[in-house]
This record gives sequence, structure tokens and C-alpha cells, in this order.
Amino acid sequence: MSSSSKPPSAWTTEPLTTLRADPGFVLAALDPDSTPGFEGGKAEGKAELVRAAEALGEVQERLFAASKGGATDAVLLVLQAMDTAGKGGIVRHVVGSVDPQGVALAAFKSPTEEELSHDFLWRIAKKVPGPGLIGVFDRSHYEDVLIARVRSLADDTEIERRFDAIVEFEAELAARGIRVVKVMLHISSDEQKARLAERLDRPDKYWKFNPGDIDERQHWPAYQEAYQKVFERTSSEAAPWHVVPANKKWYARIAVQRLLLDALTAIDPQWPAADFDVEEQKKRLAAT
Amino acid sequence: MSSSSKPPSAWTTEPLTTLRADPGFVLAALDPDSTPGFEGGKAEGKAELVRAAEALGEVQERLFAASKGGATDAVLLVLQAMDTAGKGGIVRHVVGSVDPQGVALAAFKSPTEEELSHDFLWRIAKKVPGPGLIGVFDRSHYEDVLIARVRSLADDTEIERRFDAIVEFEAELAARGIRVVKVMLHISSDEQKARLAERLDRPDKYWKFNPGDIDERQHWPAYQEAYQKVFERTSSEAAPWHVVPANKKWYARIAVQRLLLDALTAIDPQWPAADFDVEEQKKRLAAT
Repeated sequence: MSSSSKPPSAWTTEPLTTLRADPGFVLAALDPDSTPGFEGGKAEGKAELVRAAEALGEVQERLFAASKGGATDAVLLVLQAMDTAGKGGIVRHVVGSVDPQGVALAAFKSPTEEELSHDFLWRIAKKVPGPGLIGVFDRSHYEDVLIARVRSLADDTEIERRFDAIVEFEAELAARGIRVVKVMLHISSDEQKARLAERLDRPDKYWKFNPGDIDERQHWPAYQEAYQKVFERTSSEAAPWHVVPANKKWYARIAVQRLLLDALTAIDPQWPAADFDVEEQKKRLAAT
Repeated sequence: MSSSSKPPSAWTTEPLTTLRADPGFVLAALDPDSTPGFEGGKAEGKAELVRAAEALGEVQERLFAASKGGATDAVLLVLQAMDTAGKGGIVRHVVGSVDPQGVALAAFKSPTEEELSHDFLWRIAKKVPGPGLIGVFDRSHYEDVLIARVRSLADDTEIERRFDAIVEFEAELAARGIRVVKVMLHISSDEQKARLAERLDRPDKYWKFNPGDIDERQHWPAYQEAYQKVFERTSSEAAPWHVVPANKKWYARIAVQRLLLDALTAIDPQWPAADFDVEEQKKRLAAT
């Protein structure tokens, strides 16, 4: 295969198009239990995860190598979701399959006082991945138009200003060669309830539970509306949103994996040429 | 098994003791082709890598979780070696098997001008892993007593001062609950020559080659002496050196994996207790 083609897969239609939040997309109409574009069940999904990990690792190494030759391409995976939707599992099982030296993770918690003293994109811009890297945002600047809206931390005018700033910011990233892959993991309210209940049932899961998770859960409909608005205002040509049904963890993982593979394949990074005289260096080496 | 016991393994003697650079250790006497303490060959080694990865992942998650409950334990893996010895492979195949959210990588290149304006430990101290993390140093403060010695970047008095500073620094880390696992990957000069030759033969490996690697190679005996001195001066009770024969990549990987597993098992991290009333939270959840 040519270096820009993708390996065959079990996908019948591509998540890149099937899951994109195009104009007219309605979050409430997407079934969180569904598995769009993938024919098989859990067993086939797990096999796909392993299979595609090899392809992802190969193209990630080329992305990393290309940057040593001066290429500036990078990928930024933005992960947003309600609590328990599986962001951590994506990082562990999808991102975790490639060389950690090529990954830059950033988890955004509640902003610090210093961060609050700057514009909301200040702390974000500092974590944009450098050349050759796959950056991952575990939560992001979208919290500033989601929780900020639901909890009235900013008024409508400010939220609108932020939407515009986000679209501009992401367009700049794209222009710099950073492919922005925006993913919302979409679970149902019932599924979240079951997952929170499990965290309260298992002492080895207590550490993942925070009473504040239930506070946020009580605003479920408002969050769904806020996400809908986010897709309408910020799904751009340069940085479209993809909404991934995530009640089935195995599906969410292979879908995000495929989106990442798409982004890397589109970059089609090349091994850099030698910036030294190969024959001369062979002679030098032979003489040692 | 109790949470502090290690799973059964294919090791006949533990790398933790077999490979430790105790007083009297002589680098020149250790065969880089050998596989101390491991009975099998490459196939058994690869199986061991997969098997032990599960144990490592489990205890790493507990280390991470424990920090959320206030524990301050962490692990710092210091990797030193001649070029091509396989540091990158250790990061990819050993460290890369655990959750990337629990890993903090730091690669130390030639110091910048700003770094040079500070004491040599200044840039190092900033990268010490926080609670719950496995930190990995790809090269380290040891460059300041290795290349610095071989290339006469510092005089003997300064090198001696640095040895003392390192021992003190690492003892402080240990006192803070950071287990320091120091590993030198030991290859032969012939093996390095073969690996460099491969990088010059394969266009997909050119990016890993640097003509400077041959310059350093020409100082091979001086580097071996410098490493010997490092072991004698800095292998302490708090932070002993382990020298891992690394001509066989599969062996080096499982040996370092086992050393990491030992460090984590010795910490024996515990799932933190709930810092909330579990029954109360169950009721709150049920009411949503």
C-alpha cells in the first residue's frame, strides 16, 4: 500500500463522515447505544482495536520522525464528555498504544487563580502540541462555554465572544499544520448513573468518585443543550466536531482510534531525508 | 495473592539483586550478551514482557489512585546508556504499557544557555515526578559527570563536587517517597557499530542518526571508565545502580520492567479510602 492509504478495516462507513456534527446535527437524536458504521460486536471491536493500533503506531512514528526533518505537522485530540463517559479509557487504550515519547497529554481542571486572571485561552495555548506530537486535551477550552454556561459563570455575551475566539483560535492551529480532532463522547443519563453506582460499589473505584459529579449530573439537560450549542457554533471546516456514541466503551475506543488514524493518514508524514552524507558517515563508522 | 506479593515469573534470580552495581562491581566484566537470571530465550522473553505488563499496569493504577488519597509515593526511572543501547525501546515497550496518564517523561538534551547559567541539578529538579507518577529520565544529571568528564567540560574537582551533590539529591528524593531506579543499558562496542550501521542502511532510520554519535563512539573506552566511576561514587543504598546487559533488546526490556515492578511492589500502594459518605452518596445518586 502507498504510505497515504489506510489499511483495510471492519468499518463499513467511516467515523470521519458518519459521526461528524455537520449543520443540522441533533445530539438528542443520536442513540448513545448505537455503533454507527461498525458491523461487529464487542469481540470484533476488541480485535479491531488491536489491529488498528499497529497502523496507528506506524504512522505516529513517521509523524514524529518527520518533525526531526523540519515538518511542523501535529495532531490535537480534544476530548469532551459528561463524567464517566470514558475519556480516561480513550487515553489508556487508544493513545496509550503509541510511543509515549510522541504524545503530549494535558488535563484541564478548574482554572487556578492565575489562570483566571488571563483570558480563557491563555492556559490552553501553552499546551498546544509541538511539531511531530499527538497532543491530547482531557477537557479543554470547551469547559469555558459548557460549565460556564450551565453554571452561569459567564453571561451570554461573553459566551458568544468565546465561541468566536475558539473558532478563530482553532483555525489558526489548523493553519499552522495542527490537525484538530474534536470528540464528544456521548453517553446516556442512565449509563452515567450505572457507572457512578459502580464507583460507589467498589472500594477500588472510590478514588474516581467525587460528590460534585452528582451535582453536575443534576444539570444533565442543560449540559446536553450546551453541547448542542457548542456543535452549532464551533464545528468548523478547519476543526469539525465528532460525536461518538459511548455507552459501549469498545465502540467509542475504535471510533476515536479511527479518527486519529484518519488525521495522521491525511497528514501523510514522510521519513525525513538524511541531513548528512550517508556514504561519508558509513566510511567514518567503518573506521571506528 | 496479597497486594504486596509479585506474580510468579520466569526469573530464576531477581534482577533487583543480580544486576545491582554493588561495591566491587566491574563493568568490563559484565557480558553485554548475557541474560542473567532468565532461563528462556527471545520467545520466552517476549511472553514475559506481555505477562508482566498486566501486573505493572495494575500496581501503577494503585500508585496513581493512592496519590489522590494523599500518598506522596512516586517512582523515578533514570535511563543512561551509550547511543543506540535501547533507551527509546524501554520507554516504548515497558513504560508504554502502563496508562500514559500516570507517566511523566523527560528527555535531557544538551543544556540550553539558561540551563547552563544554573547549577546542573536545576533543570533536573524541575522534572522530578509528582505524587502517584512514574517519572522517566531519558538521560539525566549523569550526563554532567559522564560527557562532562570524557569531554573535559568540567575539571576533576567539579566532577567530584557533582558526585556528592547527586548522592545528596537522590537521598532527598528517596526521603520524600520517590523510589529512584537507576539503570544503565550495557551494550558492546560491536553491537553499537552494527546498530549505527543499520541506521545508515535504512532510510526510515536516518532520522535517528547523528554524525555526532560517531564522535562520541570514538571515546568508547573513556565512557566505560566514566560509567565505572559513576557506579562507584553514586550507587547508594537509597538509589542503587542496576546495569542491564542490553545486546539482546528483549532481555533489557524485561529486566527493566522487573525493576520497575519491584519498585512499585515495594511501595505497595493502596486504594485510598472514600473521603465522602458512601451511603449518603448512593442515596443522592438514586434520587437523580
